[in-house]
Amino acid sequence: MGKNILLEHGSGGIISLNLIKEMFIKYFDNPVLNKQTDSALLSTESDLISFTTDSYVVDPLFFPGGNIGKLAVCGTVNDLAVSGAIPKFISVSFILEEGFSFEELELIVSSIADEAKKSEVMIVTGDTKVVNRGKCDKLFINTSGIGILNKKYKHISTCDNIIPGDKIIINGTIGDHGMAVMAARDFAGFKTDIKTDCASLNFLIRDVLDANCNVKFIRDATRGGIATILCELTEKMNIGIEIEESAVPVREAVRGMCELLGFDPFYVANEGKVIMITSAEDAERVVEVMRQNEYGADCSVIGEITGNHIGKTILRTTIGGRRIIEMLSGEQLPRIC
Amino acid sequence: MGKNILLEHGSGGIISLNLIKEMFIKYFDNPVLNKQTDSALLSTESDLISFTTDSYVVDPLFFPGGNIGKLAVCGTVNDLAVSGAIPKFISVSFILEEGFSFEELELIVSSIADEAKKSEVMIVTGDTKVVNRGKCDKLFINTSGIGILNKKYKHISTCDNIIPGDKIIINGTIGDHGMAVMAARDFAGFKTDIKTDCASLNFLIRDVLDANCNVKFIRDATRGGIATILCELTEKMNIGIEIEESAVPVREAVRGMCELLGFDPFYVANEGKVIMITSAEDAERVVEVMRQNEYGADCSVIGEITGNHIGKTILRTTIGGRRIIEMLSGEQLPRIC
Repeated sequence: MGKNILLEHGSGGIISLNLIKEMFIKYFDNPVLNKQTDSALLSTESDLISFTTDSYVVDPLFFPGGNIGKLAVCGTVNDLAVSGAIPKFISVSFILEEGFSFEELELIVSSIADEAKKSEVMIVTGDTKVVNRGKCDKLFINTSGIGILNKKYKHISTCDNIIPGDKIIINGTIGDHGMAVMAARDFAGFKTDIKTDCASLNFLIRDVLDANCNVKFIRDATRGGIATILCELTEKMNIGIEIEESAVPVREAVRGMCELLGFDPFYVANEGKVIMITSAEDAERVVEVMRQNEYGADCSVIGEITGNHIGKTILRTTIGGRRIIEMLSGEQLPRIC
Repeated sequence: MGKNILLEHGSGGIISLNLIKEMFIKYFDNPVLNKQTDSALLSTESDLISFTTDSYVVDPLFFPGGNIGKLAVCGTVNDLAVSGAIPKFISVSFILEEGFSFEELELIVSSIADEAKKSEVMIVTGDTKVVNRGKCDKLFINTSGIGILNKKYKHISTCDNIIPGDKIIINGTIGDHGMAVMAARDFAGFKTDIKTDCASLNFLIRDVLDANCNVKFIRDATRGGIATILCELTEKMNIGIEIEESAVPVREAVRGMCELLGFDPFYVANEGKVIMITSAEDAERVVEVMRQNEYGADCSVIGEITGNHIGKTILRTTIGGRRIIEMLSGEQLPRIC
């Protein structure tokens, strides 16, 4: 292997196989992947599964607190976990630009391996394509994932049981990921110590579900931020939502950077944040359980479901006003994930 | 929606949702996808599944007989089918270049829908990212797939039962896909009527397995051609292989184009060809069954497993010579799939 990716690394021939052996098998090492079959044979121990896919094109590839590899695992783990499933199997597919550095690829691959280990998912199958120089931007990753779903959590992704009075909870501060990536772009020469919140939340979610709290809906607040989830929910479920602005945790540094750059943290991407909707009675218990987990330490009840202003998300602002949170209409931050 | 892809189509906001509704939901329309949850909830009716992923970066996007969309479905369907599984569920993830034409996207999406329908797989989940102009080459697709595996076919992708005397069968002509894509690149101004062989082979494979033929191994001969599969097999399984060159079907136009351009059809990518290894007794029956299927009409027994020259694939040439088929060492045709 040379120090840079060659077109030959995508040929399917000897040089491809060497890359697989010396990079992917080395880091992802597990009995399923090591068989190197076209398809991975998996025993799911259930006939009810969750299946999800996401491509990652974040720019730059490395940012404070993470990189595209960690992001690709966390994103797919979280998409499975918010459906109530236990994430089990992940595929990883790379599109590499000819000339991409082996050293950076190895850092990314090792982050993928670390995060997969941490979140207890197995990387069971993969693919590598190489395109000519200038035909993609360094490296893109697709991760798809399979989780095992317990029948009693089937309602969590369909959110059919939501009623007025239900509480809306977030597990921590918003906007960190988006602003960390912006800072890494050296946007306007901004210096900050903001880090991405990128994290696998499957164990946090599992803790809450295992505590038998009445959780009616979970969704991770990625592209489009928490505003997008809340607007989608009100539209889809024929309900109203009220959010108390002062209850929504935002780091001072994130708030400052957002103000300076003209962003609204409600629309900024997160990669380690979930919105949960729970019954009014169980909200405090969910908060208690979340606080025990490192990814829920700053959790907060941020609002509730209402039977009024159906189809709208209303923000009660810190200065006592009320305004409607609208769906994101343009694009704030391209290539944030 | 405008006539070209905007960065806003990847925002997660209103414009993204419109693209999903007016393009993906419109064409892929099915009860699972239409729920638009982060993860698709799937009932597999089995606890043994196959899982595969592939990214597609073929250049150009459209070529005689197909396009990247059809290719992305067939490739993943075939990867599942060669493991002995029944392909069931597919994810489709797009990376789009800002400015890409809606018209071309719609052609590709409609091809995906058509091929999914034809091969009886359901597109259950997806993702769309948009990158700035110049940061990818028009459009890349990732498809991942899940198939249901009957326990009695578990051995097919591990190929443990192969013994000397077993026959090697191919379902038709080789090299068509690679040369069709080369022709579409207008390489050396070459004019030809070669078409891609791109096809979903799940029903062909099912026919053979349902006939209770003793099939020991199946693999689709994509990147790297049939030579790559045969070399991988000999290396991995500690066997020898002998191939009768005159028995390997190659269209005259493909042979001619290969000669002119300096390619060896054994290394050229196919997208509708499988190699099967069967017991000597059952080989003729496999051929009979294959011939009944439109994708097996030109099938042929091309060689056999030997206990000699372990680790090597020997070609008995049409002029009576013998030469070793080596693993592809460079890259013949970048971005062929």
